[in-house]
Amino acid sequence: MALAQLLFAAVGLLTAAGQLVDLLVPAAKHDALLTAAKAMPQLTLSEEELQWVHVLSEGWASPLEGFMTEDQYLQSLHYEHLLVNGEFVPMPVPIVKACTAKEKDAIKGVPAIALVDSAGAIVATMENPEVFEHRQEERAGRTFGLTHPEHPYVNLIMQSGPWLVGGKLQVLKKIMYNDGLDSFRLSPVQLAAKFKELGADAVFAFQLRNPVHNGHALLMQDTATKLKEKGFKKPVLWLSPLGGWTKDDDVPLKTRMLQHEAIIKNKVFGDTPVVLAIFPSPMLYAGPREVQWHAYARLLGGATHYVVGRDPAGMKHPGTNEDIYHMWHGQKMLQAAPGLRKIELLPFTFATYDKKAQKMAFFDPKRKDDFVSISGSKMRQLARDGETPPVGFMDPEGWEILVKYYQSLDSGKTEL
Amino acid sequence: MALAQLLFAAVGLLTAAGQLVDLLVPAAKHDALLTAAKAMPQLTLSEEELQWVHVLSEGWASPLEGFMTEDQYLQSLHYEHLLVNGEFVPMPVPIVKACTAKEKDAIKGVPAIALVDSAGAIVATMENPEVFEHRQEERAGRTFGLTHPEHPYVNLIMQSGPWLVGGKLQVLKKIMYNDGLDSFRLSPVQLAAKFKELGADAVFAFQLRNPVHNGHALLMQDTATKLKEKGFKKPVLWLSPLGGWTKDDDVPLKTRMLQHEAIIKNKVFGDTPVVLAIFPSPMLYAGPREVQWHAYARLLGGATHYVVGRDPAGMKHPGTNEDIYHMWHGQKMLQAAPGLRKIELLPFTFATYDKKAQKMAFFDPKRKDDFVSISGSKMRQLARDGETPPVGFMDPEGWEILVKYYQSLDSGKTEL
Repeated sequence: MALAQLLFAAVGLLTAAGQLVDLLVPAAKHDALLTAAKAMPQLTLSEEELQWVHVLSEGWASPLEGFMTEDQYLQSLHYEHLLVNGEFVPMPVPIVKACTAKEKDAIKGVPAIALVDSAGAIVATMENPEVFEHRQEERAGRTFGLTHPEHPYVNLIMQSGPWLVGGKLQVLKKIMYNDGLDSFRLSPVQLAAKFKELGADAVFAFQLRNPVHNGHALLMQDTATKLKEKGFKKPVLWLSPLGGWTKDDDVPLKTRMLQHEAIIKNKVFGDTPVVLAIFPSPMLYAGPREVQWHAYARLLGGATHYVVGRDPAGMKHPGTNEDIYHMWHGQKMLQAAPGLRKIELLPFTFATYDKKAQKMAFFDPKRKDDFVSISGSKMRQLARDGETPPVGFMDPEGWEILVKYYQSLDSGKTEL
Repeated sequence: MALAQLLFAAVGLLTAAGQLVDLLVPAAKHDALLTAAKAMPQLTLSEEELQWVHVLSEGWASPLEGFMTEDQYLQSLHYEHLLVNGEFVPMPVPIVKACTAKEKDAIKGVPAIALVDSAGAIVATMENPEVFEHRQEERAGRTFGLTHPEHPYVNLIMQSGPWLVGGKLQVLKKIMYNDGLDSFRLSPVQLAAKFKELGADAVFAFQLRNPVHNGHALLMQDTATKLKEKGFKKPVLWLSPLGGWTKDDDVPLKTRMLQHEAIIKNKVFGDTPVVLAIFPSPMLYAGPREVQWHAYARLLGGATHYVVGRDPAGMKHPGTNEDIYHMWHGQKMLQAAPGLRKIELLPFTFATYDKKAQKMAFFDPKRKDDFVSISGSKMRQLARDGETPPVGFMDPEGWEILVKYYQSLDSGKTEL
């Protein structure tokens, strides 16, 4: 099946909305809108809200054309879908903008408002803003299945304003971060062009927010082989690190990107072409709800296949220190969602360290004593201690980048 | 539109499932199944679970054919719908059976189990029971948008076993309670016959779990008038008190039924024919989620119209003593649900006490000082004190029943 057909099939999902949303104001209208925006009441975007503007502006959350109104919010919260002409369209996570009571009063009844970044620069305008109650505990409970205030995104919700404001956006310019990584922030349209340029007939997306070890690389190589066995001539790996807000103890985007660049350069994925591009969404740590968001956005971004592992978007419960979510519920929800039928799931086989072969390998129950698991926390501790992990665990240049990061943390420097 | 057409339209919703589910084992197979069941491992049903067997057995939760398996449970929890051949069918609340770790071990791998009531009588069998984790906090958070253990149904969840067991049921006999009210427990099939016998061309369902005051009666009379103005010749009121488990301080079913019977006898609903029939479901106090369950089950039970008021299925937050849910979110969710399009919503206009006219009346903002609100808690306090409410608030015979109940409570007797 040619990519064009596959993309056409994916876009077929959006019949209700017509096409991929693009909220960027056309160049010819930019100056007039900016002038008008300067006279509008202003609301400031948090770091996370600015990232949602980015997500919305490029159509990753199509058919959504702005921050959710109350009807859209309730549909997402209750159904994990939007209703568009009576059809369920995936929309697993609420995409909302909070405000204070004072801000609410200031925008009451106005036809449009301006949204500004933390430096005061106008980013976008919102038409007919609708203000509604931000019932924070209910939002947390429904989104995460818990309300514990030390869950990082629940904490973000609880710290935000008691009102939400929704409405269609017009975005004045492409969102940039000036962190040296903007060239990796490709929109769905740019990605489609890239995949076409590479002659891809299958695009398998790998969502991640951690460094890539050789177990991941093995899985990606294995996936490419299997796709070729199925008849695809040119499978392309879309390495899609999440680039938005994450909790404090996650490895920062810049370090991860350096690590990803090093291992791609060192050919850990073999001959498979790799497109490394940042997914602009914030992280929610919402497990089986969020993995549907991750997959849906990648479907809109041009993926034909989606790699899914154990406990996607999961974390430890801040109260009990056990996994919040069941490790297979993420896969189950991806399988259940009718709106995700057009992306093929590639369940993630577990790779672990083979002491005998001195490499990451698929677990072989016949010689189970040869295998040892290297957990994320063990990996971080090794890097922090400046130690070398077992031979073959990770590309050495990639490992050095992690060591440098953790040692800069410990010495109080922030080089990376 | 004739009732037959309306019922046909309602049943059209169930194309995926074919028809209204009936889990009662045919008479010819009863004895053989009972004999087989005696040799099966047994699980005991709680009071609430027995009520769910009742609900399931008569098809109120069609197309569900038994307690939810994990896939069904996850779909209900995340989407408030089941997926049947890729179509979303309303299933707003999880319908599950809990068990202990010991019970789980006892039924591991068996082809069928027997479900017994608290007296040990076999009620039903379950084929190929599937046991899965009962992640209680997650269930509470997703269902209610809170996890507070003093919410009565959250408490029920937290007290129940750490595993859930799901699978298709065969029910051995119609569930009876021997409380003098079984004749009011009509199945959807019995209700359809009743509505047909009455020549109904519109059936408007009123779900309630409280005594009926004259404000309710006014609304029902007004609804009948409006339906006639729309061209219906024979609108029938289906007074549908919830009959299952409720929290301790709700008025018990028996008292409510006596009150309902008294007021119907005394013609408070005017000339409109009234079918008084108990809805066998437990109460969840799950607000906008639960109202969808209430409406969907009534749609399957033959209602063409559904009366919905403010804050349906809501209650006070046990931590803050404020309403858990936004008072209009219930209506909004009913309006959003595509699976409920075939039942027409009749939003509940607010009726309050008119001191001047000495009756319950629709609020008139021009003479607002003439109106006074009589809250549920005020009503209960008056009844407890044996006082007479304002003339015209409630049918006097109905009021006396409440007074007797509350006074029996205070004197430690439980006459009603």
